[in-house]
Amino acid sequence: MIPGLPQRLGQHGLPQRVTVYEVGARDGLQNEKAVVPTSAKAEFIERLGDAGLWMIEATGFVHPKWVPQLADADALLPQLAGRGFTEHTRFPVLVPNRRGLVRAAAAGAKDVAVFASATETFAAKNLNSTMADSMAEIEATLQQALARGMRTRGYVSMCFGDPWEGPVPVRQVADVVVRLAEAGCTQVSLGDTIGTATPGHVRTLIDALERRGVPRDRLAVHFHDTYGQALANTYAALQAGIATVDASAGGLGGCPYAESATGNLATEDLVWMLDGLGITTGVDLRKLADTSGWMAAILGRPAPSRTVQALTKGTRVSTTTVNG
Amino acid sequence: MIPGLPQRLGQHGLPQRVTVYEVGARDGLQNEKAVVPTSAKAEFIERLGDAGLWMIEATGFVHPKWVPQLADADALLPQLAGRGFTEHTRFPVLVPNRRGLVRAAAAGAKDVAVFASATETFAAKNLNSTMADSMAEIEATLQQALARGMRTRGYVSMCFGDPWEGPVPVRQVADVVVRLAEAGCTQVSLGDTIGTATPGHVRTLIDALERRGVPRDRLAVHFHDTYGQALANTYAALQAGIATVDASAGGLGGCPYAESATGNLATEDLVWMLDGLGITTGVDLRKLADTSGWMAAILGRPAPSRTVQALTKGTRVSTTTVNG
Repeated sequence: MIPGLPQRLGQHGLPQRVTVYEVGARDGLQNEKAVVPTSAKAEFIERLGDAGLWMIEATGFVHPKWVPQLADADALLPQLAGRGFTEHTRFPVLVPNRRGLVRAAAAGAKDVAVFASATETFAAKNLNSTMADSMAEIEATLQQALARGMRTRGYVSMCFGDPWEGPVPVRQVADVVVRLAEAGCTQVSLGDTIGTATPGHVRTLIDALERRGVPRDRLAVHFHDTYGQALANTYAALQAGIATVDASAGGLGGCPYAESATGNLATEDLVWMLDGLGITTGVDLRKLADTSGWMAAILGRPAPSRTVQALTKGTRVSTTTVNG
Repeated sequence: MIPGLPQRLGQHGLPQRVTVYEVGARDGLQNEKAVVPTSAKAEFIERLGDAGLWMIEATGFVHPKWVPQLADADALLPQLAGRGFTEHTRFPVLVPNRRGLVRAAAAGAKDVAVFASATETFAAKNLNSTMADSMAEIEATLQQALARGMRTRGYVSMCFGDPWEGPVPVRQVADVVVRLAEAGCTQVSLGDTIGTATPGHVRTLIDALERRGVPRDRLAVHFHDTYGQALANTYAALQAGIATVDASAGGLGGCPYAESATGNLATEDLVWMLDGLGITTGVDLRKLADTSGWMAAILGRPAPSRTVQALTKGTRVSTTTVNG
């Protein structure tokens, strides 16, 4: 078993398959100060695909001034063509507004993701807007994306807590999710941006959304591991019927010792759990961990993922462990 | 909320109270090469008590040759007397055999913990014995402990996987747990020594033990975070009715970057989740995190606990986060 995989002992009532929505190339890299060469990003995405991931958020068409790491979005997307991806692989890209959508379309994007805030303060600080104005732009962007035949995803930030406002009422989050769903988002991803959520809160929000007419199969979850809760929250979401989980290869974007710490759930830690639960993902954990190790070398520091660390160094059990 | 605590949104069917069985002073420290002064250990335990913990494994009466860090066990235990602990605070100590029990009793121990292996290979490597011989010594030790009116706990290592043998059959683990229960262990702690368990496996073992006549209120769980699974497994155990959870302050013993990595579940990460679920523990998370920070300074490196890290530096949300 070492090196190996967890024992498969599943549990009833969980989805048989889970789609891992891989965000490492965009959400993981975006806060890295050292700009990764476009060719390395393309190779990263190719390797993620080779490891069995097929929903791979590739980049974002945001203003280069705000996110220099993603300034090569227009060049990156065309570089993915002709590589050895399976035909059902998708490369959604983040678009903040109609201007970003036009750029994304020109680069060949077929799936776009918009993002909204569940709180006014975060809308002001991150989007430089109000929730209402931001939603109006999002709706206009979605309309154009749908007119172009694109698939659309909506991210909602601060669904479980806001660093300035504190607790975020479930109803307030649900209002935003419902608006995005009504505006045509194929899927809405519930973001725990600051990582404070716990499993009962997750369940409460998902149940509330169902009562508001947003079915579970239109939802995804996006947890951060800032307080170590991401995987427990994911397990609660699976039990609530969620079958799409966002994660970042190697835990990219989540090094606890780095300034840029955001604590993305590591794809490898997620896949370890899903493998153990007998849930099909199509992901080859070894290949994925190798890929994360390869990217960690480019970035010059270890991947935050515990599974990557364990698989890389093997599990040592000291003969003086005594017990435990 | 920042600095603060998670929103309380619980879930039905979970225990209302959970006993956190704190292992940092013993399991956390035992693999540290630099020997911590006895007075610092006593202060550590006092601070853990002041943070609301009341089941605090204090040390182990193992041979100093094997675990030099615990060579001061005989001196440490008396130093705890007269400090400001609540009267219901307990200080269990690890004893490997009858010789350790005699030492523990002489030092004033009222609660002892024995340890068994669920696999032959680990028994050979860690206990230098066979499972049968080890169990015979454990039974003799328990008999003497019970005769002295002590409370007794049994640890079982490798319940969910063994680094040499790979998968460990549930029945094989259950056999060992049943033997310990029959030999008089008040509580048996199920150890995922190498951290490979996943939530369905946890549930399966607990259910199997109930069928074998070991009720849930005699069980505790002891998860390691080597693959990031500890808290998800804990959540599964809570759902299965387990109400005692082992954890190590600050994640002591679990630094992923240290040679001595064993990946203990961090008490703070656990308490964050329990707080959020509305489960009473009596633990003051801030005081506990301060204590772990204090011990980290003594050890000269950051506490592995993500919650300690987040509470220590505050949660930073960059205004260029974009989304998430």
